[in-house]
Amino acid sequence: MINKLLIVGCGLIGSSILKKVCKKKIAKKIFVFEKSKENQRALKRFKLKFELIKRMDKKISECDLIVICAPLSEYEKIFFACNKYSKKNILITDVGSSKKDIITKINRIKRKDIKWISSHPIAGSEVSGPLNGNENLFLNKWSVIIKQKNSQNKEMKKILKFWKLLGSKTVTMDAVQHDKIFAITSHLPHLIAYNLILTATNFKISNKDNVLRFSAGGLRDFSRIAASNEIMWRDIFFNNKSNMLKVIDLFIKNLKIFKQDIKFNRKNLESKLKNLKKVRQKIVLLKQDTSKPDFGRV
Amino acid sequence: MINKLLIVGCGLIGSSILKKVCKKKIAKKIFVFEKSKENQRALKRFKLKFELIKRMDKKISECDLIVICAPLSEYEKIFFACNKYSKKNILITDVGSSKKDIITKINRIKRKDIKWISSHPIAGSEVSGPLNGNENLFLNKWSVIIKQKNSQNKEMKKILKFWKLLGSKTVTMDAVQHDKIFAITSHLPHLIAYNLILTATNFKISNKDNVLRFSAGGLRDFSRIAASNEIMWRDIFFNNKSNMLKVIDLFIKNLKIFKQDIKFNRKNLESKLKNLKKVRQKIVLLKQDTSKPDFGRV
Repeated sequence: MINKLLIVGCGLIGSSILKKVCKKKIAKKIFVFEKSKENQRALKRFKLKFELIKRMDKKISECDLIVICAPLSEYEKIFFACNKYSKKNILITDVGSSKKDIITKINRIKRKDIKWISSHPIAGSEVSGPLNGNENLFLNKWSVIIKQKNSQNKEMKKILKFWKLLGSKTVTMDAVQHDKIFAITSHLPHLIAYNLILTATNFKISNKDNVLRFSAGGLRDFSRIAASNEIMWRDIFFNNKSNMLKVIDLFIKNLKIFKQDIKFNRKNLESKLKNLKKVRQKIVLLKQDTSKPDFGRV
Repeated sequence: MINKLLIVGCGLIGSSILKKVCKKKIAKKIFVFEKSKENQRALKRFKLKFELIKRMDKKISECDLIVICAPLSEYEKIFFACNKYSKKNILITDVGSSKKDIITKINRIKRKDIKWISSHPIAGSEVSGPLNGNENLFLNKWSVIIKQKNSQNKEMKKILKFWKLLGSKTVTMDAVQHDKIFAITSHLPHLIAYNLILTATNFKISNKDNVLRFSAGGLRDFSRIAASNEIMWRDIFFNNKSNMLKVIDLFIKNLKIFKQDIKFNRKNLESKLKNLKKVRQKIVLLKQDTSKPDFGRV
């Protein structure tokens, strides 16, 4: 049980945490900091017991656990406020999707006694904002907890327990490993989806409207992914820059080989497609998706 | 009402047509040609009234309409059989995803009196085979009917009516326009999904298993698309080669610019992501997808 919890940033992830924490009574008192006026209005309509704060100031000093659910580009400002106001040995976690660069940056500026155990719940959607908050967002999803050299067992345990209470399965890894894995499983797929939509909009066809009219043949699935929050994704791509550049290069190299296969090598193309199909079965076995066929959402 | 119908190839699409034709009593008599032993066994368990034929021979001569639901690489053989056995002025349609090259090729070899009105229902799934057949597969989906110079009104009307009876919305266009539109809305997205899965499997990470374990962050959606039938997609990529090469080049060009943005231009990156997000709303307005958020299939 947490005494006083502060959620910083109450969009999709923050509000989903808020709902679950209220439902499961995980904290005695909950503060929510949210700077968007629109989100503040939405939060006021929530029939939940929490205190909305509009400034990151002395209220912070009461809190025992702070969960940052804001874009990565806001972290510096948030830690400056925590440096100024938070109590000694405060425990902070976050939900950011990129780790190494931000941890290096924040470790340089944060007050030495502040304990920061970074985390990343693998949950989300193409929609954002508190109105889309969902108390079951973390249920049976992975939450990755980042081990740093100086991470102490006691704090690690507290953060692991927090995510378990929210319904997550938990796993620990270091920031370098995390950023590589999510560059390939999440960040590149999102960039590729954005790039595919971009390509669809600048490919010259006499009647442009037609392109989107017939998007059910594949494009629409990418458009969903490419409808994600732009600030969040700008920050992720930037913060995981070195891995992004590597995976983009590898992707282009592979695509150029595919192009050659399409030009000249029907046999090679077939055997590649056949092998790639098998990856799906592994993903289903790992319970990362259902085996239920998708005939299109209608 | 069709007198005698022949479905050539009874995988996902063929069996979905079969089910709907039986249900709506669209034909008096139905023949199904299927060469895979496994599919033949599955079809025998269907509690529907049709005759399974194992050779494309004299039985064809009875038919009034033939619907080809086989991979593009089988068309030549099928038309040779139709040339030999079908009655005069037989009407043939198909469900292939690529048009210009195959139409040119078949027009060269087919008997002059055979009427071929090519069509393409924009419906499917990552699964294949008759066991996945679904009588509602075409419901409210587009079916594209291809206009050729020599297409006659009477035959066009018959094929349009056929797809409407199956539940489709119909639209006509020429083969060149079709192949451009579907290169960008369907064929490139599928190739990109295959290429992303390939890149995920050859990106070096110390612990390889982890990659798929955490695929819920984006990769799994692509793995579904990359689980599609390899023969069908090999044939589509090959038959729409010239458009494929163009869209691949454009995709790589755009991706390289994205790479530069990630390296140097945070502001540009943000405004691009923001603009691309809007495409989603258009796709939803065009009823090509629902606006219901996707929190992952669990």
